Amino acid sequence: MLMKKGCPYGTHRVIEPKGTLPQPAWKIDNTMEIYDNEILIDVQTLNIDSASFTQIKEEAGGDVEKIKARMMEIVEERGKHHNPVTGSGGMLIGRVAQIGEKLKDRDLKVGDRIATLVSLSLTPLRIDKIKEVRPEIDQVDIEGQAILFESGIYAKLPDDMSDTLALAVLDVAGAPAQTAKLVKPGDTVLIIGAGGKSGMLCLHEAKKRAGVTGTVIGMGHSDASCNRIRELGLADIVLQGDATRPVEVLRMVEEATGGKQVDVTINCVNIPDTEMASILPTRDGGIIYFFSMATSFTKAALGAEGVGKDVIMIIGNGYTKDHAEIALHTLRENQKLKDIFERLYG
Amino acid sequence: MLMKKGCPYGTHRVIEPKGTLPQPAWKIDNTMEIYDNEILIDVQTLNIDSASFTQIKEEAGGDVEKIKARMMEIVEERGKHHNPVTGSGGMLIGRVAQIGEKLKDRDLKVGDRIATLVSLSLTPLRIDKIKEVRPEIDQVDIEGQAILFESGIYAKLPDDMSDTLALAVLDVAGAPAQTAKLVKPGDTVLIIGAGGKSGMLCLHEAKKRAGVTGTVIGMGHSDASCNRIRELGLADIVLQGDATRPVEVLRMVEEATGGKQVDVTINCVNIPDTEMASILPTRDGGIIYFFSMATSFTKAALGAEGVGKDVIMIIGNGYTKDHAEIALHTLRENQKLKDIFERLYG
Repeated sequence: MLMKKGCPYGTHRVIEPKGTLPQPAWKIDNTMEIYDNEILIDVQTLNIDSASFTQIKEEAGGDVEKIKARMMEIVEERGKHHNPVTGSGGMLIGRVAQIGEKLKDRDLKVGDRIATLVSLSLTPLRIDKIKEVRPEIDQVDIEGQAILFESGIYAKLPDDMSDTLALAVLDVAGAPAQTAKLVKPGDTVLIIGAGGKSGMLCLHEAKKRAGVTGTVIGMGHSDASCNRIRELGLADIVLQGDATRPVEVLRMVEEATGGKQVDVTINCVNIPDTEMASILPTRDGGIIYFFSMATSFTKAALGAEGVGKDVIMIIGNGYTKDHAEIALHTLRENQKLKDIFERLYG
Repeated sequence: MLMKKGCPYGTHRVIEPKGTLPQPAWKIDNTMEIYDNEILIDVQTLNIDSASFTQIKEEAGGDVEKIKARMMEIVEERGKHHNPVTGSGGMLIGRVAQIGEKLKDRDLKVGDRIATLVSLSLTPLRIDKIKEVRPEIDQVDIEGQAILFESGIYAKLPDDMSDTLALAVLDVAGAPAQTAKLVKPGDTVLIIGAGGKSGMLCLHEAKKRAGVTGTVIGMGHSDASCNRIRELGLADIVLQGDATRPVEVLRMVEEATGGKQVDVTINCVNIPDTEMASILPTRDGGIIYFFSMATSFTKAALGAEGVGKDVIMIIGNGYTKDHAEIALHTLRENQKLKDIFERLYG
């Protein structure tokens, strides 16, 4: 049977609104018959984006059956696991079930185990059954299938760590890789949400790049989070604070640095209204990297203008060259980091 | 009478939620009795942010009385003209009515005519009466008062142009100033929405910085917009297209450049869903500057990742050093630009 020809970006799957791409689309076609440039995947586990899963858990009052029902409903309605409240997705791991004719030359074969590195918010998905929800690590085992487009990036799962561990790292692979690019020797770096999954990987890269002459400040909210930051031993300064209270955060940072503001701020939290806590402690001419999917564009843009801060604010791009390799390598470089990740996500 | 002491960022005016800053706050105190570090302004004209005013006009079906009612309602509800749908504000011009004790040493006196350069989305405002709505240029004359915080930036109105003209330029002052910083000699630059207010100022700076070896592509949607781009004579290439149809935009840009993608894209449109039309035509390693207040953080972040684009995406900061001076100067440098601005906004 001849396969239908698809667009590299998957626009052939967009149902509404027409003319747009699968990510911004409201609804996409999740029929599991592939086009000539698509890859069919038997899905094993979904890793829901942290902001999205937090929202779903809260809406469901923590009830696992309600979480399952809401997830099924989202996919039923949109053809993808694209949370309409947070706008975010997540990623998945599974086994290659079929490869489109046009992609036959790729270094990939049926049966290979891969992680998709594009958001679930643009991935055609069918869930037949939700087998297990692991709410504490945002992972959900399912029976079902998904489609990867020609332009969709993926990584083969590594041999030297468990699937759930690799999935946890790859889910936030962009954050440490972007941190590695941004932080320069001698920089003072503030990581907000440093005890979380992406925050801990960023701490490793920030300390590695800022070096002995740099200062890395790790801020966490809960006791558990701050203890993890201390256990890692990467932060020169550990602060406990509420990132929705920007004036307090500014005061804490200035006290800790003897009045200095920071060169680079990396926001890794998964709750709304933390834009100003990132802007206020950053020096004029400094850089803020928003990895948090709960970031509001207008709150950041108008917030910085509102206090007359001449800062460069970057939208966290989940993709940058070699991000999967960089992220997985952080665990190989740092045994303490690997231990904590195994304890939390292994 | 002793004035109350205020916080430089205006947190003393926040009613809810507590602990946040005036911009992200839902409601602020618009009592017109000033603290020791505030400036009271008798407001003459509001310049509503383009995305916000477009939304209000659409909601009101273009009916001027309904526009007025909605504006009064927003200020009544929030203590500021902070559109709850778009999240954006605008700015204002007026006359200084009173200066807090702590700011007595500033080069400013009662009676001076100023434009506030911070967003209306954080400016305490009281509207007593809406005198005139000029829907075609997003400007509204009112009787009322406003408060500027200690950290709030402003500019004295220039003598060599009319108020409405200066207001139109200052409203988008960040865009040309940021363009001036981003664009390097030889760059290929795409400006989406180049026939609009901020787009035209960006065209001037982009051409000036890219120089004879650079290529500036101006994209407009309507015939009128494209005609303005042609009349200005700053764009090397003029494209007419719909920025909500990214694959079409990519094709047009590649055709116009002989298959090349651009180094810098500046998004100046005021409608949603134009993130992907900015991302697709930008080369890997290139920069996208989102000045549009209708930009969605998640659509940009997940959209770039979804198509595997390694681009740097910057949140348009309305403030950068000397932005008012740079923006006003574009009109002094370029008579054609000044002519068009006088025709449209004068």
